[in-house]
Amino acid sequence: MQKWFTERQSAGTRFSYAIKRVIHRNKSKYQKIEVLESKDNGKLLIIDNFLMLCERFEFTYHEMLTQIPLFSHRKPERVLILGGGDGGCIRECLKHKSIKSIDLCDLDKKVILASKKYLPFVASSLISDRVNIHFYDGYNFLKQQSKNMYDIILVDSTDPNGKAATLFSQRFYRIASKRLRKNGIFCTIGTTPFYESRLIRMIDRRLRSVFRYTKHYLAFIPMYQSGCWSFVISSDCKIPHNAINKMQIDHNSFKYYNKNIHRAAFALPSFYKKLLPR
Amino acid sequence: MQKWFTERQSAGTRFSYAIKRVIHRNKSKYQKIEVLESKDNGKLLIIDNFLMLCERFEFTYHEMLTQIPLFSHRKPERVLILGGGDGGCIRECLKHKSIKSIDLCDLDKKVILASKKYLPFVASSLISDRVNIHFYDGYNFLKQQSKNMYDIILVDSTDPNGKAATLFSQRFYRIASKRLRKNGIFCTIGTTPFYESRLIRMIDRRLRSVFRYTKHYLAFIPMYQSGCWSFVISSDCKIPHNAINKMQIDHNSFKYYNKNIHRAAFALPSFYKKLLPR
Repeated sequence: MQKWFTERQSAGTRFSYAIKRVIHRNKSKYQKIEVLESKDNGKLLIIDNFLMLCERFEFTYHEMLTQIPLFSHRKPERVLILGGGDGGCIRECLKHKSIKSIDLCDLDKKVILASKKYLPFVASSLISDRVNIHFYDGYNFLKQQSKNMYDIILVDSTDPNGKAATLFSQRFYRIASKRLRKNGIFCTIGTTPFYESRLIRMIDRRLRSVFRYTKHYLAFIPMYQSGCWSFVISSDCKIPHNAINKMQIDHNSFKYYNKNIHRAAFALPSFYKKLLPR
Repeated sequence: MQKWFTERQSAGTRFSYAIKRVIHRNKSKYQKIEVLESKDNGKLLIIDNFLMLCERFEFTYHEMLTQIPLFSHRKPERVLILGGGDGGCIRECLKHKSIKSIDLCDLDKKVILASKKYLPFVASSLISDRVNIHFYDGYNFLKQQSKNMYDIILVDSTDPNGKAATLFSQRFYRIASKRLRKNGIFCTIGTTPFYESRLIRMIDRRLRSVFRYTKHYLAFIPMYQSGCWSFVISSDCKIPHNAINKMQIDHNSFKYYNKNIHRAAFALPSFYKKLLPR
């Protein structure tokens, strides 16, 4: 009989993938980590019963979380990623030759180990010598451990509701804002505007209270609830709506991102615009 | 115990809504028709076990299928809708005062009756005196029954794989193209590019063989597989990427559509662009 992985979502919905087999199942100090092989959608990384990534569709998420801020900066050199232990955002950063160093800070070593072993399509990037991996809580890493300054800070975490809540606090945003170099950009995952408008408002309000400019953008993310996911980008410099990064980059390495998508991602449906201050 | 409506989708996925109760269940000559009340997402219209519309999210689908072609035409007056018996596209058309008459042609009277009775948020539009309803197969209606000419022809049908296959045939496109007035526009649902690239290629090839201009656009449609749905718009006149309809319209009536969304919808992710001829 066909086995299914089912994610229980908010608002009375659930989504299931047909599963071929369990590749890996483990518990760390922090969470339950599973890698499953699905029937038609590649491998799945599941943490505490929530789908983190699906091999077939992770490209839309990782490209859009990473490439929009990287192309909104003229010449990004130093990047910090909070969360993202699977390596997907690092893979996207490494496409930029201008980038000299990437700090990745993930709480859970076991996520990184599982990714390295079972999810090479994202995690093979983790061994690059431009990458430094740190095992800390992201908030404390930035507050106490690291003294580095960054051109780009990315939050690639789990939900604002759960363990990652500190990465969505106003205090954290204030700390992050002080670790940005001139023209630096902060970018965080949002959530789905179709179900979580309250959360989007909250993230927006907190970011606006810290940064001079805050903009939201959207992408098709079939692996997450509703298929529509928002990201929020903030800076003390004006954020262009177009790609301004003129460094040499191989655009054939993108399956989702392109210059038209960059501009279009900032067009918000009317119901979303109404969530935000004018 | 919680009851669920589960839609089995292609490629080893399924999507479920928590259900409060069955409002209506019936069989017509053509299909099984159900109206369910979901727990958090309003009423659902299900035909042959496939979700046709969900009250909470139908606005994205109906606005984007209807408003993009209507705003791409300077002054639409005569509209034909093939399928769309629930009335959602008609509701969107009626927002345009320039529109004098709408022919709606749906095969199944029982879909219209169920919609009128249980889905007033879409179907109350069906009683407008600008609307004429015809119960025919859409292909035969256009070929044999109607002699009218149209500014806009919309295909709001079920999947190209099923009963509606004739509405995706090259022969049908040829017939439709001859029933367009000067500057007339044809617009059809596509499908999800994340799962059905073969179908998108097929629709594109057939439309291109008939019309001088064919463009694809996308919208977030949380009620359909992957949440990403394509539409294809064709004409013998150049299709602008911006709204050119300057007639007086109340933009507050749109929950999704706006001028930025209009332009942005035509930006296709790189993997989608690769499906199409250059």
